[in-house]
Parts: sequence; C-alpha cells; structure tokens
Amino acid sequence: MTARVPYLLTPGPLTTSDETKRAMLRDWGSRDTDFIALNRGVRERLVALAGGAGTHVAVPIQGSGTFAVEAMLGTFVQRGGKLLILANGAYGRRMAQMCRVSGRAHVVYETAEDVPPSPAEVSRRLAADPAITHVAIVYCETTSGILNPVAEVAAAVAKHGRRLLIDAMSAFGALPLDAREVRFDAVAASANKCIEGVPGVGFVIAREAALAECEGNAHSLSLDLHDQWRAMERTKQWRFTPPTHVLAAFAAALEQHEAEGGVAGRGARYRRNCKILIDGLRALGFETLLPDQLQAPIIVTIHTPADPRFHFERFYDSLREKGYVIYPGKLTVADTFRIGCIGALGEAEMRGALEAIRRTLREFGVTECGRASAARAASA
Amino acid sequence: MTARVPYLLTPGPLTTSDETKRAMLRDWGSRDTDFIALNRGVRERLVALAGGAGTHVAVPIQGSGTFAVEAMLGTFVQRGGKLLILANGAYGRRMAQMCRVSGRAHVVYETAEDVPPSPAEVSRRLAADPAITHVAIVYCETTSGILNPVAEVAAAVAKHGRRLLIDAMSAFGALPLDAREVRFDAVAASANKCIEGVPGVGFVIAREAALAECEGNAHSLSLDLHDQWRAMERTKQWRFTPPTHVLAAFAAALEQHEAEGGVAGRGARYRRNCKILIDGLRALGFETLLPDQLQAPIIVTIHTPADPRFHFERFYDSLREKGYVIYPGKLTVADTFRIGCIGALGEAEMRGALEAIRRTLREFGVTECGRASAARAASA
Repeated sequence: MTARVPYLLTPGPLTTSDETKRAMLRDWGSRDTDFIALNRGVRERLVALAGGAGTHVAVPIQGSGTFAVEAMLGTFVQRGGKLLILANGAYGRRMAQMCRVSGRAHVVYETAEDVPPSPAEVSRRLAADPAITHVAIVYCETTSGILNPVAEVAAAVAKHGRRLLIDAMSAFGALPLDAREVRFDAVAASANKCIEGVPGVGFVIAREAALAECEGNAHSLSLDLHDQWRAMERTKQWRFTPPTHVLAAFAAALEQHEAEGGVAGRGARYRRNCKILIDGLRALGFETLLPDQLQAPIIVTIHTPADPRFHFERFYDSLREKGYVIYPGKLTVADTFRIGCIGALGEAEMRGALEAIRRTLREFGVTECGRASAARAASA
Repeated sequence: MTARVPYLLTPGPLTTSDETKRAMLRDWGSRDTDFIALNRGVRERLVALAGGAGTHVAVPIQGSGTFAVEAMLGTFVQRGGKLLILANGAYGRRMAQMCRVSGRAHVVYETAEDVPPSPAEVSRRLAADPAITHVAIVYCETTSGILNPVAEVAAAVAKHGRRLLIDAMSAFGALPLDAREVRFDAVAASANKCIEGVPGVGFVIAREAALAECEGNAHSLSLDLHDQWRAMERTKQWRFTPPTHVLAAFAAALEQHEAEGGVAGRGARYRRNCKILIDGLRALGFETLLPDQLQAPIIVTIHTPADPRFHFERFYDSLREKGYVIYPGKLTVADTFRIGCIGALGEAEMRGALEAIRRTLREFGVTECGRASAARAASA
C-alpha cells in the first residue's frame, strides 16, 4: 500500500519505514507490563542518544514538538524567571509567543533568517541583564534550514551561570548533541523528525538535578514535565493516556536508528541526501538561500526562480503527481520554497526527486531557475 | 499478528479493529491535500455526531483526552470567570487540579463516587453565587463507571444563564448527546474511547458563537482551542504537526462507527456487552459498586471479594495469560477493581472473559466472590 504513496520531502511528518508503520498493528494496554517495558526502553535509548546516562532523564510528552517545547519553557522557566530567546525564524519567534501566552518574562535577540546568533552578543546581553535566568536556542531553525551555533552559545551561557534550553526538533538524532560536551538544562524534540517515527509524541531530555528543581513551575497540568517525570518514575506509567501506537512506532524507529549507526550514521545519510539535492538543484540553475557552511542537512530553502513560467503551486502539484511531496508552506521573508532531505529516503529517492523537478521544469518551459534579483527588482 | 495479543477490557486505549490499525500503514504530508481532506471529513463527522451541523464546530487537538479537557477549560473559562465543577471521581477532581495550575477561579460540588450530582443542588449553588460563569460535568465518570445526569444539569445551567462544559470522554459516540436537546458551550472527548480509534488525539465540539468569544482566554499556546480553530478554518491545516497516522485511524474508526449505526448501534453493542459481563459476574457471586440505573455501559466497578484466596495482582496476571487484560488501577475509595466493556469486542469476547475469570477463580480455589462487608468489618 505504501508504495503508491508519494515520498515526503518535508521537515516532517516524514516518509517512515514499513517496519516502523507495522509496529502500529498492535493494541497495547497503557498500564500493562508490555507497554511499561516498551516505554522504559524508549526513555533509556533517548538518554543514551544525548550522552546523558546517569545525569539526564528523558520525559516523553503527548502532542507535537511544539507541545514539548512549550512544556520545556513552562516547566523550566519559573514564574519569576526571564528567558532570552535567540530567534532567526518561525520557531524561535513561536517561543516568544508561548511566553506571552503563559506569562513568562522574556526578551528576544533576533537575527535575520540567514544569520546565526552571535555567541559574543549573547554574552554581552547576559552580562547586561542579570534578570535573565534562561536562554533558549533553536538548533536547526526549520524555517530556513539554518544551523545555529549551539555549542558556542552553550559555553557563553554556562560562563554567565545561566541555564540553556534547546529546541533541537529537526536536529536531534542526526546532528551531534552530547550532554557531556554541551551543558544544557533541557532539550526538546519529537518522534517524527530525525528519529523517523510517526507524529504524536515529543520528548524532553533534562539534566535530572535541574528538573528536580521545577516542581510547581508549570502553567499547565498537561504540559507539566516535572509532574510527568515524577509520576513516570513512581508508577512507570504515563499520567494521562499515552499515544500507545505512536510509542510503539517510536520504539521501532529508535531500533532502526541504532542499526544505522546512531547519530553518526543517520547524520551521514542526511548529509549525502542534502548534497545530492543541492548539487542537483544548482546544476539546474537554482540558488539556495543559505551558504553551505550554514546549511543543516535537514531542509533546503531555495530562491523562487525569476522565470515567469515558474508557478510554485503548479510546480508542487506536478511533483506530487510524479510521487514527491515537497513542503507547500513558506515561512521565510525571502521569496523561497523548501525541500526536505530527511526521513526514510536515500540516494535513489533524492535522484528521483531531482528527475521529477527536471521533467516539471521542461513541461512548464522554465529555462531560467536563478532568482535574478536584479531583473525582479527592475520589474517591481 | 493482532490475534495473539490480549483483548483489552479497559476504559481505553482499547482493542481496535484491524481495519482501524491498517489505516496507519501510510505516511501523510500534514499540509498536503489528501490529509486536508481527511481532516475535514473527521471534523464534519464529529459535528454531525453531536447534532451540531450549522451551529457547532469540531476542533481536534493533539494529545490525550486530558489535554482536550484542559484546552476546553482554559479556552472557555475566561481569566475573570469562575467554574463550578461537579465531581464524583478522579476526572472531576482532575478538572479542579487543572484550574489550580492554570489560575482559574473554581469551586467544587463533590458527591460520593456512587452518587450523581443533584440538578436541584446545582441550581441552588448557581443562584447563590452569581460569580460562577461556567459549570463542568463529567458525563460518564470512568473512576466508577457512573452515569451523571447531563441533560438535567444542562437544563439547570441554562435556566440560570450560565455556560456548560462537558467532559464526555468515555461516553461520546455511545451515549446520546445532541446539541439540539442539550445546551452546552463545549464537549470534550478523545479518539480512543467509544469511537474506537487509537490514542493521540482529542477533540472539542463547541457552539461556534461561544467559541468565537474566546480569543485570548487560553493559558497555553498549544492548548488554545480558539487559535487552533481559527487557524484551521483559515488554512484548513493544523497549526502544529498533527498526529497524521492517529488521524487516519480515527477517520477509519468513524466510518466503522457510522456503519454500525452510529451512536445508537454502538451504544446497543456496549449495553449488550455490559449486561453479559454484569450478569456473568453476579452469577459468580461478584457484587458491582453501582446499582444498575447508575451504571453506564462503559466500565464496571466490582467489589473485591472477601475470600482471602483472591489477590488482585494474581487475578490480573492469570486473566492476562488467558488473553484478557483488565484495568490494573483502582481509583475508587471503595476496595474494588474494574473491567471495561468497550472497544472492538462483542458477545464472544465478553463470554470468553467470563470463562477466563471462572477458570482463574477455580485455579485459586476462590469460592466466595461477595464482598461480605460485615465479615470484613468484623475482622478489621
């Protein structure tokens, strides 16, 4: 059945393996011993992936990745605290929105969508504002696909004695993040990104000593990670009904992740996918938003061609008919579109997508894929 | 594969049909046209199920049923409002906890776990406290399986010009609830109860005019139903990644629900299941917590036998080995255990469970299944 379904070249939900999907063909009693064992296995694997054995704990939480990020901010930033948010895209700005809604003091250090935050500027702001208790950063900002300097920012935050919270949504499992090297209080991610599970559960990996201090901080019962953690430690069960089938798929996906060589193996495949994609697009004349040294191997943002025969909606539909779903939404300020390179996809699928793009351009008679910004500006 | 897995006689997650589980064998782009159509179909079916076409809207929300209930309370009860909570079990009390965490003024009208709230007492309290803006009731309180008088309470609430919020978690889809007969602002439930989907998504069916007034009320971005609704109406998409596979299973489950005859057909099967279970248990000497007129056909609470050869943990394990998982947790004050009668189960499975209980009692040498409360009291 899955063979006729288009490949998803998006930042998630992704194309997952048949093995991962087949793990959902069983019903689990959520308080039964089999599920308790499965859940424990997932939590232990996540802690190990982050290099946190003995110091860190993994707390899964129902919902999308955004739920996990909101749970992280609400649980870790106490009501009298203040959060410095480093934003260069929609996901950084969304953290500010969470703080506004939940009533957390915060300040935003915003850079352009193709500019990473400067660790020196973070240092300067922390020195200037002693009220700031926490700093939040997005590892790979999916808005553009930019890689932000997490390790360098972590060092600056630690130097100033503040706490770091990381949104590693579309990075965790493919880009390195080791708690023994990068000091953080918590990192949030979700099952349906680089681990290649299905959507419906997120997780936070937290320094246990830091999480233990968070009782009573949360603004929401459902999103209280401290309560979720304490209850899970005590009972081995979830407080509220877990997405059992999604968890079973996540467990299967984590096994496949390990079999592929963990973060190193998964990251290597994504880097190959990304290189094939970018090389192929550039050979066709497309221009990427980001220079290669800022490009995370997750999703590629491409300038919309100036050629008036290029219409994104028709381009999207044509690729879809050919079996490849790219990302239909645009979040950047620049006129761009995006193609993801993560999920259960390899060289064959990336080359297939490029061939579909080539055929589509030919069908539309598009010959010029550059952004030709000078021409655009002149016609504006 | 599913055949060897035990049947779940719990209040959910449930045993689901193979058709429902097989719907998860496909990956969906969450912003792609196919998924948008699936999501629209789910929302329309839910509104129709509640008799709300033209007046009500369905807003799905990621997470467990508790997330949907918290989203309902946080979105509908404005920060200056006050909620009267009718509680006779864990789920009623949990709403009070949600209000404490999210800072909503509230008062609890609590009755014993085998006593439904009195509509006259609700009237009296509303008349006495004009600050109360909303009333919350649990339709079937899963703690005991008690049926609460939703229609009568709704009439009292309407008479006093206040707003009703219903937690219909383990009732929606099997017990009648028609917006043309029962006036409510919102009702919350989840996919993995009487609709027999898999866990991971909840939903709220709201009177559109009431929901439209709720902008800015919510204490949480993720759990803001007004924002979720507005964005879904505008873009046809979810704000944040939906649990695509869970939604696909939910759509399949809703089709099967309709094929079974909707609420009437589903409710009839559950009533048959419940009667077979209770008749069989009583024939063995067990006593139920609730009198039949208060028993919802969802989950049955049974007094623990006084016979010292009865140990619940061994009873649970023995039934599990025989292919039937009952509910391992106890929430009631009374010394009881619980067996559910919902999910993709019928007469054969209920009789199979009773036979497994019979064999287990014989193996343990338990001959007296009554609670023999007099004997207990004497030995205490």
